Amino acid sequence: MAGRTNAPGQSVSRRLLTVLDCFDVAHPALSLTEVATRSGLPISTARRLITELRDWGGLERLDDGRYRIGMRLWTIGTLAPQQRGLREAALPYMHDLFQATQENIQLTVLEGKQALCIEKISSTKAVPTLTHVGGRLPLHATGVGKAILAFSGKDLLRSVAEAGLTRMTPHTITQPGRLAAALGEVRKTGVAYSYEEMTLGAVSVAAPVLGLDGRVRAALGIVAHSRAAVDRLAPAVRAAALGIARWAD
Amino acid sequence: MAGRTNAPGQSVSRRLLTVLDCFDVAHPALSLTEVATRSGLPISTARRLITELRDWGGLERLDDGRYRIGMRLWTIGTLAPQQRGLREAALPYMHDLFQATQENIQLTVLEGKQALCIEKISSTKAVPTLTHVGGRLPLHATGVGKAILAFSGKDLLRSVAEAGLTRMTPHTITQPGRLAAALGEVRKTGVAYSYEEMTLGAVSVAAPVLGLDGRVRAALGIVAHSRAAVDRLAPAVRAAALGIARWAD
Repeated sequence: MAGRTNAPGQSVSRRLLTVLDCFDVAHPALSLTEVATRSGLPISTARRLITELRDWGGLERLDDGRYRIGMRLWTIGTLAPQQRGLREAALPYMHDLFQATQENIQLTVLEGKQALCIEKISSTKAVPTLTHVGGRLPLHATGVGKAILAFSGKDLLRSVAEAGLTRMTPHTITQPGRLAAALGEVRKTGVAYSYEEMTLGAVSVAAPVLGLDGRVRAALGIVAHSRAAVDRLAPAVRAAALGIARWAD
Repeated sequence: MAGRTNAPGQSVSRRLLTVLDCFDVAHPALSLTEVATRSGLPISTARRLITELRDWGGLERLDDGRYRIGMRLWTIGTLAPQQRGLREAALPYMHDLFQATQENIQLTVLEGKQALCIEKISSTKAVPTLTHVGGRLPLHATGVGKAILAFSGKDLLRSVAEAGLTRMTPHTITQPGRLAAALGEVRKTGVAYSYEEMTLGAVSVAAPVLGLDGRVRAALGIVAHSRAAVDRLAPAVRAAALGIARWAD
């Protein structure tokens, strides 16, 4: 995702996007002052742009005076391709996996150098995870991330390694050489594991959803409690990913 | 949804939003010329704004040179409230209903004078419907629409009636008086039906998801083949809607 930096010389229309950039999962609702601070825009400019976005339906005003993303943006967002064909193809398979396992089922796509969760099915019985729809996961520390990384070619692996393999837990693979070896294994078996490499107490198994052109389009994963559980679930995840690939093209 | 009209005098930032408005479910991918035509902007302006949005990640360029909504907008859209708490509360109930019925399960919210579908679970076995996530349905001709309308107060009903009750099929209720009577029945029973009023061959039953303040937050509906089927499903839909309401607050 390119995007110019928030320089004073940026265009007016770019400033409008800078206001939207202030909102994220950690900051779903912001006051005018918070938007100005986070965007680096003068209060008066931030106020004008917020009004613009609010008139359009892109922002909603809460009773406490703060603002949040509005349904207009959500509706437009549903037009993004991953949110249509792929998701619609995947949901029936995800429902089946969920019914069979009652564990967290996640569908992710590559965005930049991270895995973006575009669909999740879970329950109160499943192992708690931090993942949510619209949330991002590191490629090197998660099953879905490794499934994507293993089938994305050397350039992505290099840039991910150069950006640094952050240690999420004591089990995270932080050496590029070890990660490359693990990804080779993923290409052989067709499934990727994360053994508490992202969250202690959570293990995951994932499989890539490959397009007809052989490029990885997404990764389907299950997060469970135990290594034994994910070993048992691997064939089901792989079969579901293959089924999704058949429909998503 | 307010929003200024696309007047020549509109602000630069507003023009950026006008470009986004060109894209909808019927037009998910557009060429530069199409964007200029639909937005009423000069080609040069449209090109500059498209580039701006593309740099930011809000638009993606297809191989054929057309543009579509990008993941950046999808990610921001997931921050819209209806797409978080309500949806997360509803999904487990929707999965159960789907497993029990294998029919179309829909979750909709009021947007303007229409019902906006924010979640859908379906299968190839279910009766075909035109509804998709992000799509809109008329309030007067659908089960989910009537469930929302019945609990939204007289003003909305008046404005919907003034806008005209479009005849979708020979069974659509097009007389305000008859619609008002039908909505009274919905308030009594807690469920709303559509007997081929939206699509011939498709009947639906829906129930409102009411907030603690008594205001309707959403409607949960099932679309099935036969009147007998939806009559049988009404209690399940109502129970699920009550369950969602308990969690969504």
